[in-house]
Amino acid sequence: MKVQNLSINGFKSAGIHCGIKKDRKKDLAIIYSEVPALVAGVFTKNKIKAAPVLLGMQRLKNGLCQAVIINSGNANACTGKQGLNHAKTMVELAENALGIKKGLAFVASTGVIGQPLPMDKIKKGIANVASKVSTDGWENAAQAIMTTDAFPKIAFEKCTIDGKEISMLGIAKGAGMIKPDMATMLSFIATDVNIERNALQKTLKMAVDNSFNCITVDGDTSTNDTVLVLANGFAKNPRLTSPDPRLAAFQAMIEKVCKKLAFMLVMDGEGATKFLEFKITGAKNNKDAKRVADTAANSLLVKTAFFGEDANWGRIMAAIGRAGVDVKEEKINIYFNDVPVVLNGQKAKGKGLKAEDIEKKASKAVKQKHICIKIELGLGKGSAIVWASDLSYEYVKINASYRT
Amino acid sequence: MKVQNLSINGFKSAGIHCGIKKDRKKDLAIIYSEVPALVAGVFTKNKIKAAPVLLGMQRLKNGLCQAVIINSGNANACTGKQGLNHAKTMVELAENALGIKKGLAFVASTGVIGQPLPMDKIKKGIANVASKVSTDGWENAAQAIMTTDAFPKIAFEKCTIDGKEISMLGIAKGAGMIKPDMATMLSFIATDVNIERNALQKTLKMAVDNSFNCITVDGDTSTNDTVLVLANGFAKNPRLTSPDPRLAAFQAMIEKVCKKLAFMLVMDGEGATKFLEFKITGAKNNKDAKRVADTAANSLLVKTAFFGEDANWGRIMAAIGRAGVDVKEEKINIYFNDVPVVLNGQKAKGKGLKAEDIEKKASKAVKQKHICIKIELGLGKGSAIVWASDLSYEYVKINASYRT
Repeated sequence: MKVQNLSINGFKSAGIHCGIKKDRKKDLAIIYSEVPALVAGVFTKNKIKAAPVLLGMQRLKNGLCQAVIINSGNANACTGKQGLNHAKTMVELAENALGIKKGLAFVASTGVIGQPLPMDKIKKGIANVASKVSTDGWENAAQAIMTTDAFPKIAFEKCTIDGKEISMLGIAKGAGMIKPDMATMLSFIATDVNIERNALQKTLKMAVDNSFNCITVDGDTSTNDTVLVLANGFAKNPRLTSPDPRLAAFQAMIEKVCKKLAFMLVMDGEGATKFLEFKITGAKNNKDAKRVADTAANSLLVKTAFFGEDANWGRIMAAIGRAGVDVKEEKINIYFNDVPVVLNGQKAKGKGLKAEDIEKKASKAVKQKHICIKIELGLGKGSAIVWASDLSYEYVKINASYRT
Repeated sequence: MKVQNLSINGFKSAGIHCGIKKDRKKDLAIIYSEVPALVAGVFTKNKIKAAPVLLGMQRLKNGLCQAVIINSGNANACTGKQGLNHAKTMVELAENALGIKKGLAFVASTGVIGQPLPMDKIKKGIANVASKVSTDGWENAAQAIMTTDAFPKIAFEKCTIDGKEISMLGIAKGAGMIKPDMATMLSFIATDVNIERNALQKTLKMAVDNSFNCITVDGDTSTNDTVLVLANGFAKNPRLTSPDPRLAAFQAMIEKVCKKLAFMLVMDGEGATKFLEFKITGAKNNKDAKRVADTAANSLLVKTAFFGEDANWGRIMAAIGRAGVDVKEEKINIYFNDVPVVLNGQKAKGKGLKAEDIEKKASKAVKQKHICIKIELGLGKGSAIVWASDLSYEYVKINASYRT
C-alpha cells in the first residue's frame, strides 16, 4: 500500500529497526503531535494486563498525549515491577528525545510474553526513531508495529464539518489473539479535529464496538490490546462537543477508519484464506444474537469447513445449538451469499428450487473469498454481525513456530 | 486392540457394512441383551438435538432397554419429522429382527448433519446385523460406530461385590466436536451387575462428569452425543441400591471404564499429537477452576504452541486472564511436568535454578507425549482437571475435507 501522500496536520511519525526482532525487521515506532493532543483510548479486558497497558490506563486519566512509542517483538507482559519500570523508562526516553513535557508520552508493546525488554537496544532506538519523525512516516510506523502480520494496515478518511476539512489516519496490527467483544489489538489513530475529550472517548468507544469488537481470528485476546486516538485540533473547526449534531460526521469517519482496519485485520488473520461475515437476525435480543455469531464464528469445525470450501451447514446448526441461548430448530434459516441452505431447520428445498440445484449454488458460494453467512433465528428483533477468518494449515504453522 | 476374549454375560453384539459409508467401512452396529436390561443415559446439552437423541430421551423414561442399533456416516440431525420417523423405523426394525418387545430398542446415529438416512440400505442392514450378534462381536461394533476415529475404542473392567464377579465393557467413538461439560459423544456400556435403576443413573452421571466431561478436542459439541449404560443383572449379586456402601466398588469400575474411553478419545482427537492434562488448583472455587482449565485447554494459541513443542507459557497466562474469573497475576505459578515455568506471575527463576536451566528443562518437558500443565492460582481451594489434545495440521486437514 503506497501512502506517501497521506499525512495529518501537525502529526509526525517514524518506524525503525532497533534490534528486538531478527533480520533487521522494523520493531520500533513513534507517533508525535506538534502540540499536546487530546487522547481517548480503550484497552484489553484481559485480567492479565501488560505493563504498557497499566501505564496507559493511568496516563489516560490526564486526557493529554503528545507522543506514543511502540515496540514489537516483545510484549513486556508478565514482567512484574521490572516491566513497569521499563515501560516508564520508555516514555521518559521518548519525552526527552522529543523535548516534550513529562507525562505526555504513552507506550505500547506487542510480541512475546514474559521476556524482559532489551533496554540497551531500546534506549538507542528511541533516540534514533525520535530523530526520524516526519509527516510521511506512517507506513514505516505501521510496519514497525507488526508481529505475524503479513502486511501493514493503514486507513485514511476525510470529512467536512462547518466548512473545515478534517482528516483521520489510523494504523493497526493483528493478527492472532483477536476476538470480538474482548477489546482488540494495537491501533493508533491520529486526527486534526477540534473536539472535547468526552466526545472523543464516546465516539471512539462506539466505533470500536462496531468494528474491532466485531472481529475474530481465533477467539484469543491478548494482554496488550490498545486503541488510542489522538486529536490535535489543527483543523480549527469549532470545537465538537457531546451531544452535538455535527458529531455524526465525525462518528461516521472514525467508524470508517476503524472498520477498514478491522477488515484488514481479518483478511490478515493468521493463515486466513476467507473473509466470513456472520449476520444474525431474529434473535430474542442483541446479546443472544452476538453469542450465536461468536459461537459460529469461533467454531473450529465451521472455520475449517469454510477453509475446505465445504458447504457443511450442519456444523453451523450445531454451533447455534450450543451458543447457550434460546433457539427453535424449526425456525432457523441459513443462507450462504443469499443461497438458502437451511429453511425451517432443515436442508433447504421447495420454493421452486431442487435440492441438487441448491447444493450446486451453495458449493459455488463457499468458493468465494467473501462469504456472508446469514442466520435467521425467527424469534425476535435481536441482531449482530461478526467478521471472521477461516482456519487453515497456515494458522497452525504460524502459531506452532512463533517463538522459534 | 485384540478383544476376542472380552464378553459380558448375557450380552451380544455385531458390526457390519450396510452401505452408508464408502469403501465397505463398517457403519451399522447392534448391541443386544438376552433379557430386558436396566438402562441409564446422558445426552447432549446442545439445543439442536438429533432425532435419535429425542427418541432416546423419551424411551429412557421407561428405564428398560434390550437392544441399541447405531449407525455411523449420517447423524440423522436437522432432518425434521422425516428424521424422527426414520429413527422410529430403525428401532422397530431392530425389535422385529431380534424378536424383542416393542419399546425396548434404542437408536443412535453419528456422521454428517442434515442428510436423510438411506432407509433402504438400513432396512436390509438391520436384518443382517441382527442375525450376526455374538458374545465376541464388540470389536466389530466398536469399529462400526467410528467416524473420523483412527482406532476403535473399547474398555473392560471387573470388580467383585459380595463375592460375585461383575464385568463391564464400554465402546466409544470421538473424535471431533468434543468439549468438557457439554455432554460427550457416543458411548455404550454393558454390565452384568444387578442394580436399581436410580443407582445406575447416579453412578453413570458421576462417572461421566469425571471422565467424558473433562475432555476437550476442539470445543465443539454435537447434536448427537449419547452415553448409555445397560445392566442385565446376570452377575446375580444382591441388588445394589442407593445409598449403599457396596456402590463404591461399582462407581470405581464405571469411572475407570469411562476414563479409559475418555483418554482414548483425547489421544484419538482429530490430528492429536499430544495428551495435555490441565490441572488447576488454588482457584476461588471449583467453577472458577473449571473455567480456567477450559479456557486454556481450548485456546488455539495454547494448543498450537504444544503442537510446536514450544514452552510458550505466555499464551497460558493470556488464556487465564480472559477466562472471566478472578485471578491475581502475581500469585500465579505454572509447571510443565513439574518444571516451574512461571512463579509469582513471572518467568520462573530463583529457588537455586538459573533461567537458562529452566528454559532447557521446559523445552524437554514439552517434547513429551503426555504433558501435565499445573496451574496454581493461589486464591482458594477450587480445583479442576481437563484433558485435551493439541492442534495440528492434521486437524485442519481432516475437518476441511470431512464431507468430500
